[in-house]
Amino acid sequence: MEKSVLSAATFKALETAAPGDRLALDALLDAMPWNEDGLVPAIAQQYDDGEVLMMAWMNRDTLLETLRERRVCYWSRSRAKPWRKGESSGQVQQLVEAYLDCDGDTLLLKVDQTGPACHTGRHSCFYTRLDGDGGEVISAPLIDPATLYGPR
Amino acid sequence: MEKSVLSAATFKALETAAPGDRLALDALLDAMPWNEDGLVPAIAQQYDDGEVLMMAWMNRDTLLETLRERRVCYWSRSRAKPWRKGESSGQVQQLVEAYLDCDGDTLLLKVDQTGPACHTGRHSCFYTRLDGDGGEVISAPLIDPATLYGPR
Repeated sequence: MEKSVLSAATFKALETAAPGDRLALDALLDAMPWNEDGLVPAIAQQYDDGEVLMMAWMNRDTLLETLRERRVCYWSRSRAKPWRKGESSGQVQQLVEAYLDCDGDTLLLKVDQTGPACHTGRHSCFYTRLDGDGGEVISAPLIDPATLYGPR
Repeated sequence: MEKSVLSAATFKALETAAPGDRLALDALLDAMPWNEDGLVPAIAQQYDDGEVLMMAWMNRDTLLETLRERRVCYWSRSRAKPWRKGESSGQVQQLVEAYLDCDGDTLLLKVDQTGPACHTGRHSCFYTRLDGDGGEVISAPLIDPATLYGPR
């Protein structure tokens, strides 16, 4: 079956599935409409207070590793390699729960974030608030990023 | 200045900005690294209980409209036109706050969602929970989607 047909049929079937209905992981991963680089966006949300921390990307292998190890591993598009969150900074994300959206092209990760999620040292990457006139920075770093990424 | 240099310089400057520092909207929009289709992902989160509802895409015009009208308008990639959330279903999203992330390529929209955000009639699009074995549907529609999208 052509990939896009498989994808549409799989997620169409899930739309009318009842709570508790399950689908095997391989079937889901095969059906997911990964983009032309084999990636989907993954939103990281602090599991207890609900703060949205960051958005990054995952491929099939890093998603599988994340589900297996329960420690979040993204795909770094700039470095073109797996990015085990916290491997440089120590600010790891433990996976609490993972969700896939209705058309299978976005992940939501409920995580327990150690320290700041953002490379700037802020808790969340979403620190510029937009309005009709412009953007305003609303938070300061918790930690100097030089401390996070400096020599250790 | 080349676009990618402008983008990097703008967001680098914001990294060390203090709370309350502002940048004009045109400067931010000019610096944002829109993808090859002129889009960025936009995460919609219910403003009061923190539930992540959906992820969709915006271009410059739909972001400007959203900031101006305070009613969320995405760009529909499948229909290749502006998608005023709720225009078919009545399930609108009022914008409460909008945020841009540290590298300017993802939006976080805090919204007040009327009824279900998902086209399946569920409150959130993230209704398939993943574990090491597969996916499990965890919620049922609040409203029959035939009611949302049927003849009116």
